[in-house]
Amino acid sequence: MAQKTALIVLAAGQGSRMKSDLPKVLHPIGGSPLLEHALRSGAGLNPSQVVVVTGHGADQVDAALVDIAPGASSVPQTEQLGTAHAVAQAAPALDGFDGDAVVLYGDTPFIASSTLHRMAQARSDGADVVILGFDAAEPGRYGRLIADGDRLLRIVEFKDATEAERAVTLCNSGVVMAKASVLFDLVSAVGNDNAAGEFYLTDIVEIANGRGLNCVAVRCDEAETMGINTRAELAGAEAVFQTRRRSEIMEDGVTLVAPDTVFLSADTQIGRDTLVEPNVVFGPGVRVASGATIRAFSHLEGAEVGTGAVVGPYARLRPGTRLGPKARIGNFVETKNAALAEGVKVNHLSYIGDAEVGAETNIGAGTITCNYDGVLKHRTTVGEGAFIGSNTMLVAPVTVGARAMTASGSVITKNVPDEALALARARQDNKAGLAVKLRARLLAIKAGKSSKPNKAE
Amino acid sequence: MAQKTALIVLAAGQGSRMKSDLPKVLHPIGGSPLLEHALRSGAGLNPSQVVVVTGHGADQVDAALVDIAPGASSVPQTEQLGTAHAVAQAAPALDGFDGDAVVLYGDTPFIASSTLHRMAQARSDGADVVILGFDAAEPGRYGRLIADGDRLLRIVEFKDATEAERAVTLCNSGVVMAKASVLFDLVSAVGNDNAAGEFYLTDIVEIANGRGLNCVAVRCDEAETMGINTRAELAGAEAVFQTRRRSEIMEDGVTLVAPDTVFLSADTQIGRDTLVEPNVVFGPGVRVASGATIRAFSHLEGAEVGTGAVVGPYARLRPGTRLGPKARIGNFVETKNAALAEGVKVNHLSYIGDAEVGAETNIGAGTITCNYDGVLKHRTTVGEGAFIGSNTMLVAPVTVGARAMTASGSVITKNVPDEALALARARQDNKAGLAVKLRARLLAIKAGKSSKPNKAE
Amino acid sequence: MAQKTALIVLAAGQGSRMKSDLPKVLHPIGGSPLLEHALRSGAGLNPSQVVVVTGHGADQVDAALVDIAPGASSVPQTEQLGTAHAVAQAAPALDGFDGDAVVLYGDTPFIASSTLHRMAQARSDGADVVILGFDAAEPGRYGRLIADGDRLLRIVEFKDATEAERAVTLCNSGVVMAKASVLFDLVSAVGNDNAAGEFYLTDIVEIANGRGLNCVAVRCDEAETMGINTRAELAGAEAVFQTRRRSEIMEDGVTLVAPDTVFLSADTQIGRDTLVEPNVVFGPGVRVASGATIRAFSHLEGAEVGTGAVVGPYARLRPGTRLGPKARIGNFVETKNAALAEGVKVNHLSYIGDAEVGAETNIGAGTITCNYDGVLKHRTTVGEGAFIGSNTMLVAPVTVGARAMTASGSVITKNVPDEALALARARQDNKAGLAVKLRARLLAIKAGKSSKPNKAE
Repeated sequence: MAQKTALIVLAAGQGSRMKSDLPKVLHPIGGSPLLEHALRSGAGLNPSQVVVVTGHGADQVDAALVDIAPGASSVPQTEQLGTAHAVAQAAPALDGFDGDAVVLYGDTPFIASSTLHRMAQARSDGADVVILGFDAAEPGRYGRLIADGDRLLRIVEFKDATEAERAVTLCNSGVVMAKASVLFDLVSAVGNDNAAGEFYLTDIVEIANGRGLNCVAVRCDEAETMGINTRAELAGAEAVFQTRRRSEIMEDGVTLVAPDTVFLSADTQIGRDTLVEPNVVFGPGVRVASGATIRAFSHLEGAEVGTGAVVGPYARLRPGTRLGPKARIGNFVETKNAALAEGVKVNHLSYIGDAEVGAETNIGAGTITCNYDGVLKHRTTVGEGAFIGSNTMLVAPVTVGARAMTASGSVITKNVPDEALALARARQDNKAGLAVKLRARLLAIKAGKSSKPNKAE
Repeated sequence: MAQKTALIVLAAGQGSRMKSDLPKVLHPIGGSPLLEHALRSGAGLNPSQVVVVTGHGADQVDAALVDIAPGASSVPQTEQLGTAHAVAQAAPALDGFDGDAVVLYGDTPFIASSTLHRMAQARSDGADVVILGFDAAEPGRYGRLIADGDRLLRIVEFKDATEAERAVTLCNSGVVMAKASVLFDLVSAVGNDNAAGEFYLTDIVEIANGRGLNCVAVRCDEAETMGINTRAELAGAEAVFQTRRRSEIMEDGVTLVAPDTVFLSADTQIGRDTLVEPNVVFGPGVRVASGATIRAFSHLEGAEVGTGAVVGPYARLRPGTRLGPKARIGNFVETKNAALAEGVKVNHLSYIGDAEVGAETNIGAGTITCNYDGVLKHRTTVGEGAFIGSNTMLVAPVTVGARAMTASGSVITKNVPDEALALARARQDNKAGLAVKLRARLLAIKAGKSSKPNKAE
Repeated sequence: MAQKTALIVLAAGQGSRMKSDLPKVLHPIGGSPLLEHALRSGAGLNPSQVVVVTGHGADQVDAALVDIAPGASSVPQTEQLGTAHAVAQAAPALDGFDGDAVVLYGDTPFIASSTLHRMAQARSDGADVVILGFDAAEPGRYGRLIADGDRLLRIVEFKDATEAERAVTLCNSGVVMAKASVLFDLVSAVGNDNAAGEFYLTDIVEIANGRGLNCVAVRCDEAETMGINTRAELAGAEAVFQTRRRSEIMEDGVTLVAPDTVFLSADTQIGRDTLVEPNVVFGPGVRVASGATIRAFSHLEGAEVGTGAVVGPYARLRPGTRLGPKARIGNFVETKNAALAEGVKVNHLSYIGDAEVGAETNIGAGTITCNYDGVLKHRTTVGEGAFIGSNTMLVAPVTVGARAMTASGSVITKNVPDEALALARARQDNKAGLAVKLRARLLAIKAGKSSKPNKAE
């Protein structure tokens, strides 16, 4: 297993059954492109090189690779002439590479890293070509792995298989591992003398045997080999992904009241004894400490939640949110790029963006940080132990001092010193009987007796 | 198939197991009454006449028919004397009608139009009476269709069936097609000499055979014949409906991240490459263009969403909402009867009703169109490229011009010219040290040392 | 069945597989601790005494018992030496108790009261010791109940069972009923001569038979005996609980459009012909009258909803909310400790807390009761037929009279007389061309040509 390894990931397919302008391998599960899942499987082998073979939507795939696999090289397969042809495109990029190559598929997100390690072990144990197979519950039209004892003889397509071969349940996943130079040699020997006129990677087994090479099959769970061809299969893969993540999270000592209604990302971290109510979405980049409560209908992305904090119901934590211990974010509250220290409360109907709020400060209902002036974004700072009255507009850049207060309904455009009370509102005037008169006038308008529009309300 | 066709829809049942004051056929699935689903099935035959036989809650059913089948005639069945009796009530309404009649059931929403076409084909092929049957997975107490070769001999109730007849798995759906005049003749010959003293439509098969008429069975999928008798069955039917709609939507090239959490209506249209996150409800009348994103926890009714628009999370689009291309509706935002042009952004905590907003305008957090004065509704118009500051009250009727701005926290009661800045807010006053004094006074009140209520905040 | 009964509830286990600092029996399903569910099962026997045997987290369990079973006594099991040892700890608390004792488990929430009644009946019919068994679908490693005709001979642990005994599918639930004095006598005779060195309650059957006592098994449904050891099992139990409650609610004549997405509490009451849309959470203490509509994404706790009221979508009713008939609570609205009379409308983006609102009053969008001043909570009163303009701040304590109005954007700090119009807002000033100049200045700042921060917005 000390072999250096290169990944060759086939990502050229159009996925026409997806009915999409997005290349198939960029469709997401768990919020990440299929291709990223495939690369993550392969990453378990610690590859020294990653080559992605692109075709349909190559520009989009290349753009995505900048984010998800910055070190990967991308090679175009300009014509779609079959899997062997696709692998061959990677040869120049791996020219002189002395290690093993493993062929993965950008639309097959669930190959376990442990499975790839078992393939690597088979290589260490002397196999020249290792093919990943699975015992299919319903083999149907899958290609069959035909073995003689431990020795894999060939892969037959279903349509070419004899009755006896069709009775075999060990099927071909398509994943292959071999010394890179051997793989490219074999691939270059594959022909396209078949109905589709394509070069099939599966043919390399028979060619290898013909050359006296030792081919073996390694088995994995059928679920790992699930490929995505339709939106329904994409949804099915999402469900598999979510079920696995939910189990892992529960195993860690987290209560999911209704696991089927909680949506997790690959990187979601939740601490022990946190309770998650039904209908919560964890987008990418969320870290929740222990003993927190995430209430129903909450939506978190790129947020940190401190120990014992209470979030929701109906809280939306956007990227850059950092909640201190025991902070509370209540209903219909949005936070973004905001650090709220220990014990801060934002309980109702507020937007706190581009802000820093000191410990134990209470933010009243309807408070808004006016962080955007149409061109620039500005920051709001509120000190410790402050009290922001309901419906305060904090027009950034602005600072409210420690232990200061703002009167409800105030528009705060100037800094408020520590311990000061800021007011910015008009005097109340009660006009006796005017509500009744006004309503009468409106009813008259409605009845067509007057046409003056009401402007007093 | 050139036959003219009339639908006779039986909708008189009480549905006592529903425990409801609403007639059974008006309980909804997919937001539409069961009766509407049954009528929609039948509509595939392009019927020239529709007769609905009403009984329990006839007034409510008649009122519903005004909306869902304006051209239908309704005939009362004042006593509930069985299905043959119910069909007989339709005879006067179809007096002189020369075509075929098909008997459907208002509580059986899933008969496929293609199934009815196959029944019509059987009529064209020479059958006098066509009965719709299904192969039941668990035939249980269903009536059985007793055939001799292609010829349907009779329908036997389970309790009257011999052992051999009970072994038959082809069961009766109740759906019948025949020439209308023949149907009414047969029905008038049905007796009620049975334990319940009811006139059973099933008896017409034996009577028809006795008259030398040719009866045949057409088979459909068991799922089509699902009838609704309890709230649990109603929920089951809703699930069937949703599963079917979700598949159709995905087939069209839409990603549903978690299909089981997305609720669709019969008329929901969603364009290719739109992505729908978990927990979204599409009420009636929604049309989403391609490449849009409908984020989690959104709720849409009677709304149009433009290409590439982003809606939610937690967006509520109410009827009359029209979003232009690339418009963005963010969290805790409600729109109603509002046209928002290309690129408009309403990102947070706003209510935009009875309004028109020009392209690329940004509506700040907490903005409310004050469209109702307690009596009348008024319209708000905002021009292109405007910037509405946070927490602006737009007191309709009012117009804000193109490229105009409003200062945050302003109550706008007068029109704002193009390119003007409107302000309507009080000066801010910082009172040094007053927050601390005020808090001390409140704490004293709390401790019982003072009783003066606080009014300054 | 005239016997007096004592419950002995074993609640000492650590539940290490829960990976929790919370004692296992305090983990919730349906919002109530497992222990409360077990006690509720036992409550069907009308017990005159309840003894809870505590161990791990005894302080937390004792604290919880104050709420969930105020009359229960708690006895500590300081060492975990097995179930017989645990039962023995209850002996002093039941010293001199003359009736029957039933042993239940704090982590086994679903034993039906009817099952316990059948056990009591078996006692009345002459059994000295009654053991609750169940026919296991997969008996696996459960203990087996070995009977000879009606007579239960002994309980064998799986590992000690012969092949013939392992073939028995009647398994041990652990629930035992016997005269209390007999139970304690038997328990004191149990030894710990086994691999684990523990005292097993199961041993009492063989001991009882040795003493000529009559032991019998009563059967229950396997689902009743479900015990909780992991977070996944907790989630499974929650699902069982929810499925049962949903069925009950539908049986009562309530439409749940998507039952799987509605979460109920043990005490949720919903009246006939109420319709509940998808994704609704009913916390504890909710009572909904008939003919109401609870729309999608609503969250209710401790709230009463009147006949024909419409709640949601996105409504959060918190404890102390009382909605009159035909009241309407709309989207992004939170109510708490608030009585809203018949026909009151709060349709958008509001927080109504510690308030009383008279019939037919309309509360505009963005209204907030400013009920908290940082130290004290105050009440708001609004009369009948009033009209609260959008974005009104009602700074409590404050009263708005009947048929009064407030102008939108007003901060109301003083009482408003009946029929008066209250205004508290600044005059609007339109500054011609200033929006364009301001934007130009901001763009200049952005371009680095100016550094003066914008304060005018």
